[in-house]
Amino acid sequence: MSKNQRILLASRPHGAPTPDNFKLDEADIPIPGPGEILLRILYLSLDPYMRGRMDDAASYAAPVPLGGVMEGGTVAQIVTSNHPGYTAGEFVLSHSGWQSYALSDGAGLRKLDPSSAPLPTALGILGMPGFTAYAGLLSIGKPQPGETVVVAAATGPVGATVAQIAKLKGARAVGIAGGPEKCAYLRDELKLDAVVDHRSPTLPADLAAACPNGIDVYFENVSGPVWDAVFPLLNQYARIPVCGLIANYNSTGPAPGPDRLPGLMRKILTKSLTIRGFIQFEFAAQRPDFYRDMTSWISTGAIKYREHITPGLTNAPNALIGLLQGQNFGKLIIHVADPA
Amino acid sequence: MSKNQRILLASRPHGAPTPDNFKLDEADIPIPGPGEILLRILYLSLDPYMRGRMDDAASYAAPVPLGGVMEGGTVAQIVTSNHPGYTAGEFVLSHSGWQSYALSDGAGLRKLDPSSAPLPTALGILGMPGFTAYAGLLSIGKPQPGETVVVAAATGPVGATVAQIAKLKGARAVGIAGGPEKCAYLRDELKLDAVVDHRSPTLPADLAAACPNGIDVYFENVSGPVWDAVFPLLNQYARIPVCGLIANYNSTGPAPGPDRLPGLMRKILTKSLTIRGFIQFEFAAQRPDFYRDMTSWISTGAIKYREHITPGLTNAPNALIGLLQGQNFGKLIIHVADPA
Repeated sequence: MSKNQRILLASRPHGAPTPDNFKLDEADIPIPGPGEILLRILYLSLDPYMRGRMDDAASYAAPVPLGGVMEGGTVAQIVTSNHPGYTAGEFVLSHSGWQSYALSDGAGLRKLDPSSAPLPTALGILGMPGFTAYAGLLSIGKPQPGETVVVAAATGPVGATVAQIAKLKGARAVGIAGGPEKCAYLRDELKLDAVVDHRSPTLPADLAAACPNGIDVYFENVSGPVWDAVFPLLNQYARIPVCGLIANYNSTGPAPGPDRLPGLMRKILTKSLTIRGFIQFEFAAQRPDFYRDMTSWISTGAIKYREHITPGLTNAPNALIGLLQGQNFGKLIIHVADPA
Repeated sequence: MSKNQRILLASRPHGAPTPDNFKLDEADIPIPGPGEILLRILYLSLDPYMRGRMDDAASYAAPVPLGGVMEGGTVAQIVTSNHPGYTAGEFVLSHSGWQSYALSDGAGLRKLDPSSAPLPTALGILGMPGFTAYAGLLSIGKPQPGETVVVAAATGPVGATVAQIAKLKGARAVGIAGGPEKCAYLRDELKLDAVVDHRSPTLPADLAAACPNGIDVYFENVSGPVWDAVFPLLNQYARIPVCGLIANYNSTGPAPGPDRLPGLMRKILTKSLTIRGFIQFEFAAQRPDFYRDMTSWISTGAIKYREHITPGLTNAPNALIGLLQGQNFGKLIIHVADPA
């Protein structure tokens, strides 16, 4: 390939993204200047937060500009380096976005050793999603032995990790996922204590039956009907780390009534609830602990992970559209290229 | 007086309480059995939480039963004692409710020394409201020097204490109250950094002008339109101790739309907000620190307090009805009787 394939944000979505919000573009492969590195992207991570970057709304990070390369975490191999710290052939974790080549000045890169862990894990269980689960559950959720921890999107890379760490901490882990295949995985592979299918027409009753002692920690990454099922079951002093709201990401305009805010505030007061939003950057100081613990848990089989790898950068738009509908099963990664 | 005057819950209110929800009753003065104490009530505290006890809804405490004596904190004097730890004439803090006499077995009593602090302070600045302010602000709000702390119901016994402790901790204290007299008190007596009248038709703009650097801590004890004015101004990592929701206590049935819950959850996520409900019991271990600090702050004039004392137990129903409309100015206390 002699060109740099790039996927640009062509237009901002109104509601769910559509393929025409993206534009495939070919540009010359950039030439590294002094101190710069040319990266060849091998794997691109697709994550729910990317939906937010497509909007022009205030958030914790700036939106992708119209015509700009879609943002994303990547595993790359160094093609050429004018940087004293990096050598051609080395592998790095970078944030190079939806393209096949990128320049870097070294800022924010982390070297990866493919002999210690498979490269795609740097985007999943040993990367941002795994760390999000670890930091959010342990620092905010603080599960205690015997407590009930409920996780939605429980086959996703964050949810599955939260559920397994909760079990390791002695809590009762209840996973919510969509469809029999995902539910079977949670029950049979991850050995969760209870599993609920959010497509069930009796979701609230199913969840209540799965949580006979109520809910002490609800790890929120979906919102929507799952929230309404969780809400009546929250125990005194329950903690709710708010990590994502994927069911709302495509919503447009004000939501119809009734207004659930007064009921939420009343329950926050009467049950002494803690609701705490977070982005994993906040807990960066815990990353060494995370790498140590997670590497150990994976090596002993205490934590399992599942990846959903789709080939071809040009498939990224449809893969993200599907992710927002729950079509992936495991950490969604685009395989952009093989190592040299 | 040879009878025990009692105010009973005659019926549960639908919306705002009315005088006919209460019933004045006369019973014989109870006779203490072995190990028991007869208390004569001197002061009765009226507090917003009492509205919740009149409902039959789940909360952190059981409702007052129909026909039962209305609940409340009291300062009492011991008339006769069959308890080895208590002597006639002593003063105690008790939770004896809306009546002129009560029995106690000593559980939950705290002796009061009227020479160290005026007796009514045990129901206000040195009692439950003062401790609620202290524990909620310091343990959940955690104001840092230079941060902006916004307090609603800022002339109330909790709000005024929160605002002054915030100032002591080096934060910028912004008080919200209703009407020019209360606002002048906050500005001129308590010397808050900024004051906003919640009756102003331009409340959101007024609050924004009073908080040029946004809001880092919002001590929530009112909800309603004040919440909507606060919400857009919340900073990254803002903390919201939820202590009370007085504007909602009289609400009936579901609130009309639009549904503000999705917008709240989105902001919790994008701003990494902490919303934490609490009842002061949770922080009981901090009471010795509270007594030490608050006594010192009062003695040096660093913290001021204001009491609104109304004579006569029979006036308690109308006083509580007025409290829920913001008619009190300072800690509302019923003067039931003089000491013997």
